[in-house]
Amino acid sequence: MSKFMNLARKFNCFYFNGDLQRCRPFLVCGKQVGVMQAKVVEAACRYPDVFQMDSSGMISMHPSLKTYEERSARINHVLTQWKEERLFVTLKGWRNECYEVRTGFADPPLLKMDRSAACLFGVRQYGVEINGYTRHPQLGMSLWLQRRALTKPTWPGKWDNMVAGGLSVGHSVLDTALKEAEEEASIPAYLLANLRSAGSVSFYFESERGLFPNTEFVYDLELPADFVPHNSDGEVDIFELVPVSQVMERIFTPEYKTTSCPTTLDFLIRHGFINSDNEPRLPELVELLHIPLHYLYSQSSSQSPISPN
Amino acid sequence: MSKFMNLARKFNCFYFNGDLQRCRPFLVCGKQVGVMQAKVVEAACRYPDVFQMDSSGMISMHPSLKTYEERSARINHVLTQWKEERLFVTLKGWRNECYEVRTGFADPPLLKMDRSAACLFGVRQYGVEINGYTRHPQLGMSLWLQRRALTKPTWPGKWDNMVAGGLSVGHSVLDTALKEAEEEASIPAYLLANLRSAGSVSFYFESERGLFPNTEFVYDLELPADFVPHNSDGEVDIFELVPVSQVMERIFTPEYKTTSCPTTLDFLIRHGFINSDNEPRLPELVELLHIPLHYLYSQSSSQSPISPN
Repeated sequence: MSKFMNLARKFNCFYFNGDLQRCRPFLVCGKQVGVMQAKVVEAACRYPDVFQMDSSGMISMHPSLKTYEERSARINHVLTQWKEERLFVTLKGWRNECYEVRTGFADPPLLKMDRSAACLFGVRQYGVEINGYTRHPQLGMSLWLQRRALTKPTWPGKWDNMVAGGLSVGHSVLDTALKEAEEEASIPAYLLANLRSAGSVSFYFESERGLFPNTEFVYDLELPADFVPHNSDGEVDIFELVPVSQVMERIFTPEYKTTSCPTTLDFLIRHGFINSDNEPRLPELVELLHIPLHYLYSQSSSQSPISPN
Repeated sequence: MSKFMNLARKFNCFYFNGDLQRCRPFLVCGKQVGVMQAKVVEAACRYPDVFQMDSSGMISMHPSLKTYEERSARINHVLTQWKEERLFVTLKGWRNECYEVRTGFADPPLLKMDRSAACLFGVRQYGVEINGYTRHPQLGMSLWLQRRALTKPTWPGKWDNMVAGGLSVGHSVLDTALKEAEEEASIPAYLLANLRSAGSVSFYFESERGLFPNTEFVYDLELPADFVPHNSDGEVDIFELVPVSQVMERIFTPEYKTTSCPTTLDFLIRHGFINSDNEPRLPELVELLHIPLHYLYSQSSSQSPISPN
């Protein structure tokens, strides 16, 4: 097994090792929005007026909760209790920032919940990531990496792609990318004119906090060799320009944010640095950067979910 | 459903509509190499010394056939009979060119069979495709498309990517790309120096001929605006330089080779022409260009295969 394939198993650990068969699909308005592990199902069953389990074992938000507001208020009430009871480690990192839960990315939101709770319900999360790169006269093709601030609630001090951020309500994907590029790396507008959409990556990570079925919209931004990003919002410790050959070593270290590796690998593959010569199982690696979350979250009957195990 | 998503359902028609649950995994030396539809299983069962069905319904090549040569000879014997009996339409297009059957792309070959029979056994097929493009002063970003010769056994007269070819024994992926670029489009070596590996696409097509679980290694080749490809091997009718905006119309017509669309779409996504603004379900589209063939072909026990239905 190559180093790249091992890494793909790491950021897809729930896809490979997670017990998806024993998780329960979580439905709102008859459509799947998430996946619940046994410990969350157990806690949820204490609230039969909020969560309902059907005969096939799927958990739904109670159909009497008819509006976005009702559902959001009730789930917030439950989560606040869980937080006080210290039932789940992820709720220690309560964000006071809500996440909109939808069936599909382009569908209307069905409820909102604190961002720290999304992983308890295995809700799909979407973000944007920008590969900032330059063809440096001495270093050759190089990527700007950021080291995350030590004060960040998740992955403090880890290496990350130049710009990364979650999608926020009311902003398009491109707007979010532009906003984050300005806030995180102070990229001026005349350079952002070069920002290019380059697709997306999908993977399924699990940590002690919960489940992370993540999709990142990927952008590439070529920068002049003499440009240096600097942070404006306190979320970045330092930026470093790293030659591709060194990036291809650093991504394997524990100092690199695991869930940022798919976007980095996607860049290295699209630009030919990882290819069929240095990775004989290239197609499998590429498939593992785009696992079928659209299908894993399509349950509405008693079909059983899929995973490689 | 957007036009792009509809197109993805077309080249993935077996993934979406095929009856994978009722197909039988086809194993050689205990590992899955293919998938057999009922009509093929029926024909194979007439040769119990070549094919063996186990209690879980999987078909294996008979374990008494111990070598590559034995297996290849016996399957060739069966296929020759089927061809004479006119049992399967695909064998009308007998190629007199063999295909090496392997567990995974980088694994040693287990047997060979005529290329026209690979789709009967649902054997994974690998090819290379080159997106030849130019930033034209008048037309803007444009792709060189080829119209396939009317004499080609498959998809005659259809529009296709600039260069495409199956992987041949004894040649690396890159070597195959270089060889095809020279033979099909007469690209000189000094221009081929710009050839860039850009990843791969995986999809699952079905036609009256059989099953096509295909993986294409994708290359991009930027060409000078004044370069015009010309064919040397008789496999191409004409080449045409088509602006991206027109490519994005032509791929939806029946004149475009369905199984070449994934590589074209992958190019359009990687270069930002299809993005979250014009395709709200971009992540699902990207996932459908990279369906998990690695997993669909990983059966070795009584697990049931997966598909979206």
